[in-house]
Amino acid sequence: MPILSASDALKTILEAVHPQGTIAVSLERGLGYALAENVISEEDIPPFDNSAMDGYAFRHDDILHLPVVLRLVAEIGAGTYPEVTLKSGEAVSIMTGARIPQGCDAVVQREWTEPEGKDKVRILRSAPPGHNVRRRGDDIAKGNEVLQRGCVLRPQEIGVLASLGRTQVTIFRPPSVALLTTGDEIVAIDQPLAESKVRNSNAYALRALVEELGCDVRDLGIARDDREELSRKIEDGLSSDVLITSGGVSVGRYDLVKDTVEELGVSIMFWKVNIKPGMPLLFGMAGERPVFGLPGNPVSSMVTFVKFVRPALLKMLGHKNVEPRPTLRAKLEESIQKADGKRHFLRGILDSGGGALTVRLTGPQSSHILTSMVKANCLVIIPEDVTHADVGDTVEVELL
Amino acid sequence: MPILSASDALKTILEAVHPQGTIAVSLERGLGYALAENVISEEDIPPFDNSAMDGYAFRHDDILHLPVVLRLVAEIGAGTYPEVTLKSGEAVSIMTGARIPQGCDAVVQREWTEPEGKDKVRILRSAPPGHNVRRRGDDIAKGNEVLQRGCVLRPQEIGVLASLGRTQVTIFRPPSVALLTTGDEIVAIDQPLAESKVRNSNAYALRALVEELGCDVRDLGIARDDREELSRKIEDGLSSDVLITSGGVSVGRYDLVKDTVEELGVSIMFWKVNIKPGMPLLFGMAGERPVFGLPGNPVSSMVTFVKFVRPALLKMLGHKNVEPRPTLRAKLEESIQKADGKRHFLRGILDSGGGALTVRLTGPQSSHILTSMVKANCLVIIPEDVTHADVGDTVEVELL
Repeated sequence: MPILSASDALKTILEAVHPQGTIAVSLERGLGYALAENVISEEDIPPFDNSAMDGYAFRHDDILHLPVVLRLVAEIGAGTYPEVTLKSGEAVSIMTGARIPQGCDAVVQREWTEPEGKDKVRILRSAPPGHNVRRRGDDIAKGNEVLQRGCVLRPQEIGVLASLGRTQVTIFRPPSVALLTTGDEIVAIDQPLAESKVRNSNAYALRALVEELGCDVRDLGIARDDREELSRKIEDGLSSDVLITSGGVSVGRYDLVKDTVEELGVSIMFWKVNIKPGMPLLFGMAGERPVFGLPGNPVSSMVTFVKFVRPALLKMLGHKNVEPRPTLRAKLEESIQKADGKRHFLRGILDSGGGALTVRLTGPQSSHILTSMVKANCLVIIPEDVTHADVGDTVEVELL
Repeated sequence: MPILSASDALKTILEAVHPQGTIAVSLERGLGYALAENVISEEDIPPFDNSAMDGYAFRHDDILHLPVVLRLVAEIGAGTYPEVTLKSGEAVSIMTGARIPQGCDAVVQREWTEPEGKDKVRILRSAPPGHNVRRRGDDIAKGNEVLQRGCVLRPQEIGVLASLGRTQVTIFRPPSVALLTTGDEIVAIDQPLAESKVRNSNAYALRALVEELGCDVRDLGIARDDREELSRKIEDGLSSDVLITSGGVSVGRYDLVKDTVEELGVSIMFWKVNIKPGMPLLFGMAGERPVFGLPGNPVSSMVTFVKFVRPALLKMLGHKNVEPRPTLRAKLEESIQKADGKRHFLRGILDSGGGALTVRLTGPQSSHILTSMVKANCLVIIPEDVTHADVGDTVEVELL
C-alpha cells in the first residue's frame, strides 16, 4: 500500500466517517455540541414592545413643543399587563422591560423629566418616535431561522434557545470512543514500574483529547504483544463507535495490530502517512465504525490525534467546520533543516508580543519528548517539499 | 458611590477574590483545572536508554570501516530486560522502545542493514555515537520541576503526569456558583409564557458560561421583586462560594437587590461601571465570597460576565492568567459613533480572510438583541475617550 500524503489521508478519513444519528438532550446538556436541527422561531422575541429605560411613555405627537406637562394615568412595572390605552396629553410611568401600552410610541428616561405635582410629569427633552422602545420581534422575528443544523452550541446559543422556550435540543449523537494501548513494555500508571517498562501515559492524554470534544471514553487498558489478547481486546473495542489504539509502532509489531484488525473484518484504508511525527498511522473502517491505529510515542499519538482523529470525531459530532484549527503565519526565530520529504509538525511557541507573530521551537523534537507538547502552544507546519527554513522566514502555525 | 472605570472595577474585583483551598482529584478529573502544586519528577523519563528504531544496536567503534559484519548475540523486544553486555564485534537486534544493552552506544535502522547468514548482520551505513538512542532522562530528568503551580492541565500535561505515575493531582478547589434571576417579568422556560412576561434565558446562558470554566452551578430559580422572597433566595445563594444575580436593572428595582444584599451583610464595593452594555453592575464581598449583581438584559449579563466575573472565577480557580482573553487589532469595516464617555464592548465579526484582520459589527447593538452574541465571534472595544472611529481605523478586539 502506498504512503499517503497528510492531505490525502485526511481526505480519505473525512470521506469515510459520518454522524451516526441524533439524540434529544436537555438544553443544558447541549453545550459544546452541534445542533442536528434547524431552529425556527415560533414567536417574536421580545414578545411585545417594551421600554429600554426607567422613565415615561407617551405619544410622540404630544411633545413636539417642550417643555410639556403630561398627566400620569398609570404606573407600569415589568411583568404587568398595561390595561390602559393612552390618549393625547397622557403619559405612563414605566420601568425597564415593562410592556408599552397601546397608544405610546416613545419613552424618555426619568433623568430627562421632572415631577409636576402628584400625578403629572414635565418632559424636559425631546425624543424621536420609537425612542427607547424595544420593538416586538427586534431580536427574533416569528418564522425566522434562528440557528442552523451544524451550529455549535456556545453559551449564547444556549441562551437564545432558552429565550425561545426550548427545554430540549436535538444534537448529533456523540460517538463512544474505545481506547486501547498495546505493547509488552507498557504498564498501568498505578502499577509499580518494573525494569524496562514505561507507563501508559497515552491512555490519559488521548482520553483527555477525546473528552474535550464531548465524547465518552471507554478505556480498554493494555494489550500485550500477543495475538490472542490483542484480538480479544480489539473485538471488544469494535463495539464502541470509534476504536483508537496506540502503540505497536515497530515493523513487526505493527503488522500484529494491522493483521489482527484485518482479521476482525476491518477494511484498512491506509497505514502509512508521509508525516513526522507519526508516519505509521493506520486507518480502517469496521462497517460504519472508524478504527485508528496511532503510533505509540507520546508526541506522535497526540499529534496524529489532533491532525487526523479530531477532524473525524468532529465530523461524526456534526460540526460544520471539521478541519484542523485555523492556521496563522509567523516569522521563524530559528532555522530548520529537513531532508526526508515528509510533512513535519514541529512543536512551537508562538509569541504575539511586539506586534508581529514570531515562533520558535520548544527544543528537541524527538517524538518521545512529551514535555515538548507541554512547552508548545502551536504546531509549526513544514511542508513536504521544503528542505530548510531560515530565521525570519514565514511559516504556517496551527494553534494547539 | 462613584462610577468606576472598567479597569478600576476589574482591579477591585481581582484584589478581593482568592482561591479557596485545594483538592486532590483523580488525574482524569484534573483536565482543564489549574495545578495547586509544583510537580517535581522523582525519576528519569524515559527511565532507561532505549531505541528510537527497529534495527541493530552495537558499539560505535565497531563500525568505523563499512561495510562491517557483526555477530548477533541477542534479540531485544520492547519491555524485556537485556541480560547481555555487548563485546566488540557483537550486535543485538532491537525493537523500537526496547532497552539498549550495556556496551551499545548506537543503533541503525533495519533498512540500513542486510542479514548475513542466520546469526550475523551486515551494517551498510554509518551512524554517529548516540544515533537513534533515546537517553534516559531525555524528556524529564529526575529532580526537575516538570509543572508549576497555576499551570492549566491540558491533555499534554495530563499525559506528562501519567508518565510520572501520578494517579491523583492537587488542583485549586473549583468554587460553587449560585445563580439567581430576579424580576416580576421573568418566567421559567418550561412554563407557559403569559402576557408581558419573558423567559429566564439568563439562567441558561450564565450556567453555560460558568460550567465552561469547570465550576458547578446551583440554579436558585427566579426571585420576584419582593423583598422577602429576594432576601430568602439571596441568603440561600450566599451558602455557595460565589453568588451571581441577574436583573433588577431599573433604578427602583436595582436598589431592592442592592439593599437586600447589603442587609444580608454583603460589603458592596461598587455598583456602577462606566461601560456599555452593563453600566449597573454590582460587586460585593460576603466575607470571602464574591457577589455579582449583573444587569438583566441578556447581552449585558453575558458581556459583564465575560469581562468581570470570568476573571474572578479564573483567579479563584488558581489560573495564572486571569485577564480577559488576548486582544487583537483589526481594521474597522464600518464607522462607529459614540458620545457617552463609556467604554463600549460591541459585538463584532472578525474576519482573517485576505491576510489582514478586519472586523464589522453584528448589526443593532441594543442590549436586548441576544442574537448579536450568536452572530459575534469577538467584542470590539471602544475606549472611554473615543467619540468616533472611521472605516479603516484600527480597533482592539477580544475573541469570544
